[in-house]
Amino acid sequence: MELLKQRILQDGRSLPGGILKVDSFLNHQLDPNLMFKVAEEFRRRFEGVNVNKIVTIEASGIAPAIILGYIMQLPVVFIKKKEPKTMDNMLVSEVRSFTKNRVYTVCISNSFLTANDHVLFIDDFLAYGNAAMGMIDLARQSGATIEGMGFIIEKGFQHGGDRLREMGYNVQSLAIIESLENCQIQFR
Amino acid sequence: MELLKQRILQDGRSLPGGILKVDSFLNHQLDPNLMFKVAEEFRRRFEGVNVNKIVTIEASGIAPAIILGYIMQLPVVFIKKKEPKTMDNMLVSEVRSFTKNRVYTVCISNSFLTANDHVLFIDDFLAYGNAAMGMIDLARQSGATIEGMGFIIEKGFQHGGDRLREMGYNVQSLAIIESLENCQIQFR
Repeated sequence: MELLKQRILQDGRSLPGGILKVDSFLNHQLDPNLMFKVAEEFRRRFEGVNVNKIVTIEASGIAPAIILGYIMQLPVVFIKKKEPKTMDNMLVSEVRSFTKNRVYTVCISNSFLTANDHVLFIDDFLAYGNAAMGMIDLARQSGATIEGMGFIIEKGFQHGGDRLREMGYNVQSLAIIESLENCQIQFR
Repeated sequence: MELLKQRILQDGRSLPGGILKVDSFLNHQLDPNLMFKVAEEFRRRFEGVNVNKIVTIEASGIAPAIILGYIMQLPVVFIKKKEPKTMDNMLVSEVRSFTKNRVYTVCISNSFLTANDHVLFIDDFLAYGNAAMGMIDLARQSGATIEGMGFIIEKGFQHGGDRLREMGYNVQSLAIIESLENCQIQFR
């Protein structure tokens, strides 16, 4: 997605350690017009895929997911990153975050992810694929089918995308970073 | 907002301890059409107010905020609930959550909240007003002006709204719950 790549080059910052900061438009401050364009591109990429629900993970996945849900007229569920005490009937999994160097619990109510669901999973970043593996585990527990996975930015050099594609998932990333070596942003 | 009240009566569940569960349409599973209507109502309520930025707090505030940002053509910033290690120049405050019975750190980059900003703060719930007080503290630190505060649901019996209105803030809540006594939902 050319518009997104241009924006990453213009406003993104590459920091030592393979970190790409996009917090001026994607995951702290959000550009609603870019989010709308991103959602439209997801709809185009997943056209014809049989989906009845969009699932994302808090917090940065929510903005693109809700707009995509509006465009596609589908409900959106966001996976929570801790067990809220007022939520019963939860499916729970564990996700390792390399960026934050910790393991966290993710959960979703089994009222909102069931064996009848055909899910499009949306998230802002695909790096090692650990959040996506959490989604896969929750889907397995519930019996839901993952019909597609859409990411705004994939860090190709961290190979989560390779892993998911090898597993047979329909993975669509709107911008794939091939390398951040020497803090230079290079797309695949 | 009549549509919202009807939806709360239809799909909300009142649990012992003053808890209102709206996780089927507002803060776990999200109804994008309702979110759009909510955002349109916020725009109507804050018409004529001079705002250049929408600020919300992760996670459940993001969906209404991004749609309102799209409608009003304004950038959206979401306050984070921990100090991300890749974020420098942060303003930090502490918020007590009664629902979750803990104190958490909230933060926002001082690149995205400055003395030039006229902020509309949006959140899903107003209960004791602690998240809003965190916003007020962050605004104070940055020099930003809060021009309005919009909440989807206010729990009137927990008096955060009274507190904010007494402080002089323009508070708009789309549904105000007067009481959840005996697990009956009563609007003001």
